[in-house]
Amino acid sequence: MACSVDPNENVAKAEWRIREAAGKGAQIVCLPELFRSQYFCREEDAALFDLAEPVPGPTTETFSRLAAELGITLIASVFERRAAGVYHNTAVVIGPDGALLGTYRKMHIPDDPLYYEKFYFTPGDLGFRCFDTPHARIAPLICWDQWYPEAARVASLGGAQTLFYPTAIGWHPSEKAEAGAAQFDAWRTIQRSHAIANGVYVAAVNRIGYEGPPESGLEFWGGSFVADPFGQIVAEASHDREETLIVECDPRRIEETRRNWPFLRDRRVDAYGGILQRLID
Amino acid sequence: MACSVDPNENVAKAEWRIREAAGKGAQIVCLPELFRSQYFCREEDAALFDLAEPVPGPTTETFSRLAAELGITLIASVFERRAAGVYHNTAVVIGPDGALLGTYRKMHIPDDPLYYEKFYFTPGDLGFRCFDTPHARIAPLICWDQWYPEAARVASLGGAQTLFYPTAIGWHPSEKAEAGAAQFDAWRTIQRSHAIANGVYVAAVNRIGYEGPPESGLEFWGGSFVADPFGQIVAEASHDREETLIVECDPRRIEETRRNWPFLRDRRVDAYGGILQRLID
Repeated sequence: MACSVDPNENVAKAEWRIREAAGKGAQIVCLPELFRSQYFCREEDAALFDLAEPVPGPTTETFSRLAAELGITLIASVFERRAAGVYHNTAVVIGPDGALLGTYRKMHIPDDPLYYEKFYFTPGDLGFRCFDTPHARIAPLICWDQWYPEAARVASLGGAQTLFYPTAIGWHPSEKAEAGAAQFDAWRTIQRSHAIANGVYVAAVNRIGYEGPPESGLEFWGGSFVADPFGQIVAEASHDREETLIVECDPRRIEETRRNWPFLRDRRVDAYGGILQRLID
Repeated sequence: MACSVDPNENVAKAEWRIREAAGKGAQIVCLPELFRSQYFCREEDAALFDLAEPVPGPTTETFSRLAAELGITLIASVFERRAAGVYHNTAVVIGPDGALLGTYRKMHIPDDPLYYEKFYFTPGDLGFRCFDTPHARIAPLICWDQWYPEAARVASLGGAQTLFYPTAIGWHPSEKAEAGAAQFDAWRTIQRSHAIANGVYVAAVNRIGYEGPPESGLEFWGGSFVADPFGQIVAEASHDREETLIVECDPRRIEETRRNWPFLRDRRVDAYGGILQRLID
């Protein structure tokens, strides 16, 4: 979805889109990262902490009512105010009875030109988490997490069948012509690789639209997709139109893929200790 | 390269190909996995242990002389006889003075129909290793290792600038029509993802040719390639012709990629402990 400057408008649009998805049979619905506002991390401004909310709070209450009404599981992204001076980029998982199944706080926080997230978000302290829903065991991860094989691995070892990545990523206008295709391709490739390495479904849910001043804003590249447990893309959205992808994720496909490509059988857990170091030097 | 049933012929061809590569300016040359013979793991036959050799041994001596003559670094794959009953699938790194810089023993051993490697190879006990050569710090990994993000990560944290994967992978004729494209695509995708996640070059070196009885043999799919530190393929060989790829790997490209996509900066080494478990259950 595209996000406007008015949070009420974004929440109303998300609600409308969720109803549309549920009407088409969706059982688990994932919203894009920080969909309630434009991507405010384009600048460092302490006044923007006003956008944050507690969890549970107004947004989770709105979507809890909606999840219960529709009987679906919902993954929503919230700018979480945990305490004065401690904010998180958080995903909440709401069950089909409206109960909060749990929260995940973004573990890997980027900080790059126009993505000044380290100013806003304390890194997550809940680890990588899986949640049982009536239809699948799932793990929410968030945007920058998608570049880290460790996050996908730990979530998968915990039994996740589908990894959900609410995302807000796009092109700098000045880079798009030269590097845009390679950037989008790398983003897709690394996430497809998590599906392959772990034999799980991966769902990446991005926003679209241009936000910010001409030339110095961000063009969010959309391209939301679902990859099957062998990394094949089974549904993919455009770069520039709002779309709701409804994808069947069949646990038998996980079983079948892992039987034929039994990567998890042969992991050398005795030899991966270096992963816990910053560098091996 | 394609491999014949005659080891002498394969060694002679490898030597010819190495001379060709060095003549075109190659500084580090990598041969495909177990190039000295056809891929014998298609069956379990104890007589085939006769193909193994000590390290150092005849093959490493041949290629040490060649490396010294040409002044190049050479990565060669050897079926290593370490002791009676203990064999490894080994890569040796030979420096431009002909000295053995070290060995790597394949850590992840597959065992699937026509790839009965667990019968032949004891899993490696040397860990993931980097070697300094005059032109780059490199890490050899071998075939099935390519499906494991952990192997690429540990090698990269150790300072590897290029990961080399000597490989022997192909299609079952009965599966090719239905699943062949997805299999090759997954193989390429997971290795490109190692380049992206780590900001390193990746070189995958496969064999070509059909080996074994009609219908129940293996069609090795070639497709050797080099990916740059953002996962873009900069050179790629065909599925069915012998080719020597000469690729410049520029360390400045590693520097530049990691500055712009600083994934290594934000790793949560405090939260990856689950990687050291078989499953988190």
